[in-house]
Formats: sequence, structure tokens, C-alpha cells
Amino acid sequence: MRETKQIYRQRVTALREQMRRHGIDAYLVMTDDFHGSEYVGDHFKCREYISGFTGSAGTLVVTEDSAGLWTDGRYFIQAQEQLEGTGVTLFKMGQPEVPTVNEYLAKNLKDGQCVGYDGRTVMASGAGRLKKALEDKQIRFCETVDLAGEIWTDRPPLPAGRMWILEDRYTGKARCEKLKELRQKLDAEKADGILIASLDDIAWLYNIRGGDIMYNPVVMAYTVVSGDKAVLYIDPDAADSDTAKELACDGVELRPYFQVYDDIKGLPSGTRLWADADRTKVALISAVPDGVELIDKPSPTALAKAIKNPVEMKNEITAHVQDGVAVTKLIYWIKTHRDTQEFHEGKITELALCELHLELRRQRPGFLEESFAPIIATGAHGAIVHYEPTQETDAPIEDNNLLLMDTGGQYYQGTTDITRTIAVGEPTYEMKKHFTAVLRGNLALGSAKFKYGCTGANLDYLARSPLWELGLDYNHGTGHGVGYLLNVHEGPNSIRLRNADGGVGAVLEEGMITSNEPGFYLEGQYGIRCENLVLCVKGEKTEYGQFMEFKTLTMVPFDTDAILPEMLTQREKAALNEYHEEVFRTLEQYLEPEERKWLYDVTRPI
Amino acid sequence: MRETKQIYRQRVTALREQMRRHGIDAYLVMTDDFHGSEYVGDHFKCREYISGFTGSAGTLVVTEDSAGLWTDGRYFIQAQEQLEGTGVTLFKMGQPEVPTVNEYLAKNLKDGQCVGYDGRTVMASGAGRLKKALEDKQIRFCETVDLAGEIWTDRPPLPAGRMWILEDRYTGKARCEKLKELRQKLDAEKADGILIASLDDIAWLYNIRGGDIMYNPVVMAYTVVSGDKAVLYIDPDAADSDTAKELACDGVELRPYFQVYDDIKGLPSGTRLWADADRTKVALISAVPDGVELIDKPSPTALAKAIKNPVEMKNEITAHVQDGVAVTKLIYWIKTHRDTQEFHEGKITELALCELHLELRRQRPGFLEESFAPIIATGAHGAIVHYEPTQETDAPIEDNNLLLMDTGGQYYQGTTDITRTIAVGEPTYEMKKHFTAVLRGNLALGSAKFKYGCTGANLDYLARSPLWELGLDYNHGTGHGVGYLLNVHEGPNSIRLRNADGGVGAVLEEGMITSNEPGFYLEGQYGIRCENLVLCVKGEKTEYGQFMEFKTLTMVPFDTDAILPEMLTQREKAALNEYHEEVFRTLEQYLEPEERKWLYDVTRPI
Repeated sequence: MRETKQIYRQRVTALREQMRRHGIDAYLVMTDDFHGSEYVGDHFKCREYISGFTGSAGTLVVTEDSAGLWTDGRYFIQAQEQLEGTGVTLFKMGQPEVPTVNEYLAKNLKDGQCVGYDGRTVMASGAGRLKKALEDKQIRFCETVDLAGEIWTDRPPLPAGRMWILEDRYTGKARCEKLKELRQKLDAEKADGILIASLDDIAWLYNIRGGDIMYNPVVMAYTVVSGDKAVLYIDPDAADSDTAKELACDGVELRPYFQVYDDIKGLPSGTRLWADADRTKVALISAVPDGVELIDKPSPTALAKAIKNPVEMKNEITAHVQDGVAVTKLIYWIKTHRDTQEFHEGKITELALCELHLELRRQRPGFLEESFAPIIATGAHGAIVHYEPTQETDAPIEDNNLLLMDTGGQYYQGTTDITRTIAVGEPTYEMKKHFTAVLRGNLALGSAKFKYGCTGANLDYLARSPLWELGLDYNHGTGHGVGYLLNVHEGPNSIRLRNADGGVGAVLEEGMITSNEPGFYLEGQYGIRCENLVLCVKGEKTEYGQFMEFKTLTMVPFDTDAILPEMLTQREKAALNEYHEEVFRTLEQYLEPEERKWLYDVTRPI
Repeated sequence: MRETKQIYRQRVTALREQMRRHGIDAYLVMTDDFHGSEYVGDHFKCREYISGFTGSAGTLVVTEDSAGLWTDGRYFIQAQEQLEGTGVTLFKMGQPEVPTVNEYLAKNLKDGQCVGYDGRTVMASGAGRLKKALEDKQIRFCETVDLAGEIWTDRPPLPAGRMWILEDRYTGKARCEKLKELRQKLDAEKADGILIASLDDIAWLYNIRGGDIMYNPVVMAYTVVSGDKAVLYIDPDAADSDTAKELACDGVELRPYFQVYDDIKGLPSGTRLWADADRTKVALISAVPDGVELIDKPSPTALAKAIKNPVEMKNEITAHVQDGVAVTKLIYWIKTHRDTQEFHEGKITELALCELHLELRRQRPGFLEESFAPIIATGAHGAIVHYEPTQETDAPIEDNNLLLMDTGGQYYQGTTDITRTIAVGEPTYEMKKHFTAVLRGNLALGSAKFKYGCTGANLDYLARSPLWELGLDYNHGTGHGVGYLLNVHEGPNSIRLRNADGGVGAVLEEGMITSNEPGFYLEGQYGIRCENLVLCVKGEKTEYGQFMEFKTLTMVPFDTDAILPEMLTQREKAALNEYHEEVFRTLEQYLEPEERKWLYDVTRPI
């Protein structure tokens, strides 16, 4: 272990040599590709290459005499383990007394020093905030260097997959309709065109999918749409002739991926160009000529994509039934294999279950791939919020402990994301108490009735309150938006106490899908999370307003073995029993007789 | 009635004549004095003078061929009644399809037209937003005219009351301490000085009180504090020699009220001046010379004032006990006078009760005056959210209906604000159902336990949810901050779904006092509001964070005659019973034997 860690010390040293060569005093390595994708392809894993930290979020800052990694609460435990011995210091974001990257640089840089980063991987808005934080210090910025690339000899190439067309019976809206609506938004904003760099927006707009980003079925691309043109910048090999022809029918022109830089540089003076600085990298925004007026607002595609249309909503229900069958079969399998020789010999491990789970999902119609790396975490692993079992960490499922399983699938009919925490053997009273508190939060949020206009900030309390009553909490958001056969994390909807910008967040609109996932984590012992996806739908409309509700899409039982019924209110019991009745009614037809019998038992009213 | 309305038509016509004389195409009349006070002195009631609308909020916009009044949900019913026949159109703010003032002007003004207003009564931030909304139209602005003043012949003079010193045993912090802490904030912001125009901030900072604004015990003043100076701009007659001497001891210099304009104009170039554009009028901000750098942020006094210190917290408890005695005695009196001849003859009217209520408060030690105009509203009057009984509207208390009483007092020990809705005679099932839903919201919010960092936006759901479940709602915020022997409405804390700026609002800090006042209003029938003031206090601190709770300050029983016990959960019943037990225990010593016996009965566990 020590020895492997030595590699990272050497890489940091190599990076410092490049820094000296370029006259850079502090170098930032983001966890990002050219598009702000959540899962970055191997080509872009510079931060992991240098520091050894494998989490999905984090920023590495290297100076002459220090190296620090900033990451958030999901990864504190994991980062601590992975950074140990690498010489890289962990900065726990959001904890008291811990400076942000910008504060750290503002404090430690000297007047006139140089900060470097690859501007293709840094959001324009983030670069702006950094420059503002350092404005007192006459700092120079070197935004066109890729030092990590210079030291990374065997760096994997850029992804270059094929793209394919998602049919209208899945998307519910034709490409030409989406383009028309986008152009109406451009007109309303008096914009001549819009530059979009976020891959899921592009995939949604053109009804295309691909495989360039792990778990996200998107294609590496940029697009510029104007009143009379729609140019899609992609790898020339990505589209076969049929695909290109179909796109051409809707007036979509294909151009090489990197040509977007030249085209942006060539925009005529006076153009009003819409580009979201929160979704576009600083290198591309810097390419915009001086005479072009930038409209820095979220792309209208972001909200349009989040509000699922009636066809998408119907499909999502189907996807979740199929996914529910796979997850329920897995839980049945685990429950019935607990007292086997296999189990007692430690052969039923986290990775073995991941494999079985994928196999069960593959048997479901419409399934394409997993929507993120499965988290199957036994006992103490469950307390590492974004733990992913690997060959190194794989462990046999512990008896008399909790097993946390957070997995999801990509289906033609939508994207799923579910967490179930189940008792293996006999859980302790404490485990049950904590599980029941988490479940109460899930039930309260899932059965919320609220007036139109509410955002996640208004509802987050419901999910946390049962834990807060016990003096407990979880260190992550309660819910994130979910795409349709797209990213498992998408905006603008979310359920959090406050948005990153301090605002209340997006109004919950009919058709938005959000996760409902309170949790509780006891370091070194176990983790609990109860996650359903919920679809926002209209409830009654009275003279006092339009009321909204959540329809729970996820169809998998909660483990009654882990519940303390006396902790549930009458109302919570009713909500649980109603959900369980629907789960049984929905799934029974897809199950084998013994599975059906088991499901009947575990979904009986409590 | 018709005839009185005619006056307002004439006044609008007179205003139009002045507009023509000044070449003004649209004239705005705000509801505001020179300080943004909520209750404006008679001198400033231009909007009421011209339109006849008496509500505490509203903007009148007069053009050549139209006159419109914009007000919010609290006043829709009242404004409709008062504007009928005046020729002034009501614009219901926040309703679908209703433009804002700025949108209305942007739509209806022609290129190059002139908008006028008295810049001494328009906030700098508001004027900025108006100019931005009209920036496409080359509108001219005339900010130095007071046209309403020109047509208002018998206009009352500016208030000119005496100010007095509030002793440290009430304020809990000496003036010199407050000035020292303010100067530390100036240093941290690298500000050379701060200009404060909000009267409650000034009163709080200098531990002074006065009587220049009705219900708000403040003095008309401005202040500029710098590292070595503290200048208080007031009417030269406001301070007697003892007061002036005491202020001088702390280095506070008195200068004439309007001299602030000249002093601001004379600030040397390079000065960094802190002034909150949301709390300072555009006329004063416009006086700042070009070379002075403005720091536009909330004054640190706003937050410091909202966070009551230990002495203030202790005093507030005392004030609320005394106020609770007065309110409880009133309720007892009403309940025991319902079946009297007086009652049946209609002699017990809203105004009669207002008078009795004030008398009962005057008997309490520490009482100074009412903290706002009492709302005692029987039956349908209760549905007019900010109804105030007047000679014209006064009505006998209706039998078999609800009586809503929203009143408050200013005490040396603090400011109170309480609403109780009581049953007079036998309420209907519907009344009880609605009352119980409102009460449930009050109990849920009042017994919330939440993690430090929450704002009112995170908690508002608790108060509304029982109504939302029934498809009902109320058209006002759930809670506002309350001052200490100062304004009954003060920021920055509040309990609302979202702040006016779209943000989540201020973090609830220990020591903040906020109202908890859900309601329900059935036009033409009755109104219900259950309002307590709650003090934010620290609860347990665990490894998951600091938890916070509310301590209910208000000590007056809720009317169990109006409750449907079967609608309450076990938990809500427990919360109500616990509160009632505390109310009885606290108040019994101050009551007459028969009052005590009655209170014992009505606070028994249900």
C-alpha cells in the first residue's frame, strides 16, 4: 500500500517541475472534462492520476511547497484513506475553519505570482470567481497549459464513440419541435444564437445518445443554434451516414469537434450570443470576440429537459417497474442466501452482488447499462457515502449488519436510481432506530402535498426532521434531479436546504423527477439510505392555488426487518402500507412463484 | 359614501395638473417617509391623501389617463372597497397576469417620457430597479419634486418629538459597546464610515427611543459613524440637555436633521462609505459625491439588533408574561360577557374591545403604548387580513362566529405581537376545522427542532402544511422578525417560502424573535390567525451539529372551544397541552380568583 502511494508523491514532484518550467506558482487540477460532465472519461482523470483520490468531485492545488485536495462531505472518509501517505493534504469543504480553494490561494499566494490551469476544464464562472478572489494581488493567470497532460505519458485518448438516435416514442418530442421551441426562447431574449457545451442538454436537444461518458449516454459535442442554423460539433466518425442524414433533415449541420473554437472566434461583431458561464469552460468563453455581447443565463434546454413530457413520464413508470423487478429479485436472492454455505464461507461479496445485480437488470426489457457505478456496501463500507466496491475493497456481506445498495439503470424508457438498505441477519436495536428515522424522512417527503411555487429548499426539512429530532443528520443533499436516459444527476431541480448560490432553487414543476434519499452514516459501523425517485405531479387545484404532489416511481419494498414499527406515526404506517401494496400489485406478475410469495409477506401491512 | 370618494377623483385631477406643469408623464406616490418606516407619519400620507386607500403598503401611479394602486395580498379586499368609486384601479401584486409597477411603466410609457417622484421617499435600490426596467425607453427622471405636497394644502408638519434614553438594564448593552462593535465591522470592511437612515437601527445603536413614528418608538434621524466620529442628525429640539450630554459622553455629536445632505455632499474624494441602498433613499445616495466609493451592503446594525442579547431575551420573557395577562383578561372578559344584555344589545363592539384591551395593557407594569393599530375583527371583518376597526367600520361582536384579535404592546422589556382567534358562542364545524388546521400549523412550527443554518424558507412548510392538506392556504408570510421596544416588523429574520430577493433569507440565530402566525381567511365569513412570538434558542449540540429550537414567548391560551380534538395528532395534542400548562403556571399569579379558575378550565389537557 505504502509503495503505491509513493507513485503519487513522484507525480506531484513531476508536476512541480513542469510548474517551474512554465513559471507557475500554483497549479489547479480540476475533476472535469471539457463539458462539466460528472463522470469524466479516463483521458480526463488527471486529478486521480496525480493524487490517487478516486472520488467524483475534488480539486487538487499544487504549489512549490504544498499540495491540497478539496472535496465535499460525501468523500471525507474515502479521501482520508486514499490520500494517506501521498503527501497531499485533505481540505474538507464546508467544515468550519476550512478555507475554500479561493480563500486558500488568496491567503498563500504572493503579489504577482502566477496561477495556472487548463482553461478547457475550468468553468467560466468559476474562473471569474477565482480572479475576483485574487484581484488584490496582481496575480497572473496561465489558462492554456495542461501540465498534467505533460507528465502523463500513457494518457488514454479522448473518447470517440458512435452516437445513435433515440426514437420519438421514447423522447416524446421531435428534434424539430425542440429546436423550434429553443429558437422561440432565443427570440424572446433577442439572442442571435446560443452556445451549448453541456452534453446532456445537447443529447436531449437533438434526441441523440452515445457512449462517450461512462454511465452518461451522451456524445462529446458542442452546439451552436441560431435562427437559421444548428451546428453540432462532434468527432467526424461519431455519426454514421444514416444518423447524419436524419440530423440533416432537421437542418442540423455536423462539424468537427474542435472547430467550435474557430467558429466562436469568427462570430461577427454585434452578435448577441447566449452562453451559460456556469456550463461553459473559460477557454471557450475567452474565445468569444470582444464585439460579441454575451448573455450569461442558463440555457433554456436545462429546464425543458428537466420537465419530462407526458410520453417520457409514462415511459419512466415502465422503466421503474422493470428496474424494481430486478432490485426486488436481488433482495429476495440475498435474503434467501443468507443462511447458505456460500454466505458463511464469505463468497457472497459486494462485487459478486454487483455482478448479479447487473445480470438481473440485463434481463429486463429496455435495459441498456448502469446509470452509475453501483454502490453495494456492507457494514462499515455503507458509512462511506460514495463508496464503490473494487477488487481492493471488496468484502463478504456481513451477517447481523446492514447492507446498503445504491444502484441504477439506463433504460430506453428512462433512468433509474434507487437505494435500499436491508438487514442481513438480525440488526441491532440502534440500527433499526436509525433505519426507521431515515425511512420516516423518506415517507414524509414522498407524501408531501405542497402548493405550486415550492422548491426543494421548502421541503428538505421533511426528510431530515426525524433524524434531527434524534440529534442526527446526514452530510449530503436530500434529492437531485434525474434525466431521461441521460445523467443520473441533472438540474435545475433538487431538494436541499439551500442551493449552492444561496437561493431557494428551482420551482418543482410537473414532470420533474427528483430523488428522495435521506440517509444516516455511522463511521466504522454502517450506513443507511432510503432512496426513491419521485415524479412531481399536479394535485388538486382550489381557489387557493394549484397543489402538487410526488408520485413515487421506484417500486421496491423497504425492509420491514429493519423497522421499529412503534417509531412510526399512524400516518407514516399508512403511507408505508399503501406503498407496499402498490409495490406488490405492480411487481407480482413479473416474479417467480416463490419470489411472489416472499414479496407478499414482506409487503403486508404493518 | 359616493360623495367622499369624489374627493379622491378631484385630488388625482389636481395631481395631474401639477404633472403637466412639471412636464411629468407618470408620477409615483410611495407609501413611505424619508426612512422606509413601516408606519408613516401623517405628513407622509400622500398616497392615502390622494387615493383614499389606508393600507400600510401600496404604490400609486398616476399618468395622464390612468391611475393605479399596487398593493399586496394582505390588502386586496380592503383596497377593493376603499378604491371603489375613486377612479383608481387596483393592481393585485403577485397575482397571475398582474404587471408590477415597473412592468406597467415599461409597457405604457413612450420613448423619452418623464417619470417623477419625490426621491426622498424612494429607496435607492428601488429607483435603480425602475431605471433598469425602463432603460430601453430613454425615460427622463425627475426625482426632486413632491407634487403631492404641492396639492396638499393642509398637510401636517414633520413629526418633532422628544427622544429619550433607554437604560442599559433594558438594552443589555451600552452605547459605547455598540459603537465599538460597529467600528470593528467598518474596519473589517475597510470602510471609512457608514451612513444609516433606518430609524430602528439608529434607535438601537444609540439606545435612544422617541415618538416620531406611530407605534414605532423611534426618532426621525440619520447617522454617520466613522472611526473617530458619530454624528446623529436630528431635530435640534429633540434632545434635552441631559440627553445631549449623555450622548456626548460617548462621543456622539448632534447636528440638525437635514444637514446630513450637506455633510454627505462634502465627503472627501476617496472615502469608502458604507450605505445600504435597500435602506437609504435615492435622494441621499444621489448626494454622495462622485469620488466617494459606496459599499452597498446591509448595515451591521440590522443583524446585531435582531439578535437579542441575554438581557433583552430575559426582559422579553417578562414583557410577554405581562402582555399575556392583559390578553388573557380580555379573552376572559369577552367569554363571560357573551350572554349579557350589553352583548345582545350590540354594545360590545370591535372598538369597545380595542379600548378595553388598551386599558388592560395600561395596567401592566412596563407598558408604554401599542406596538401597532389593534386589529379586533368580528366575523367577516376577520377575513380582511389587515383590517383595523374605525368609526365607520366598527361592528358589534357577532355571536356564533369567530373573533380575531391581533394586537401588541411596547414595553420597556420588549415588543409584543399576538393574535388569538376565539369562538364567540358556538362556532360551526367548518370554523372549527379551519381553526384546528391553523392551530396545527402554529404548533408544528413552534415545536420545530432544526439544525443551525436553517432559515425561515426551510421551516415555512410546517405552518402551511395542515392547510395545504385541505387545499387551503393564506396569502401572507408566516413570520416576521420583531424588535426590542422597536418596530414590530424588523428584519432580517422571517418565515416565508422565499425571500423577496428569491433567496432563502437569514439564518435563524439564537436570540432572534420571529412571529409564528399561520392563518385562514374566508371572504365574507370569518378570519382565523394563531400568532405567537417565538425566540430562537440553542438546543442540543451533537457531533452532527448545533440544533436549534423555538421558545414560545407569547403566554395566552388558544381557544379550545374552536378546536376539533380528533384532527390533532398525539404529538400536536401533547404540544398544546404542554403549552397550556405553562400558560396557566405562568399567568395564574397575576389573575383574579374567577379568572384563574376559568384559565385553569380552558388550559386543561385535551
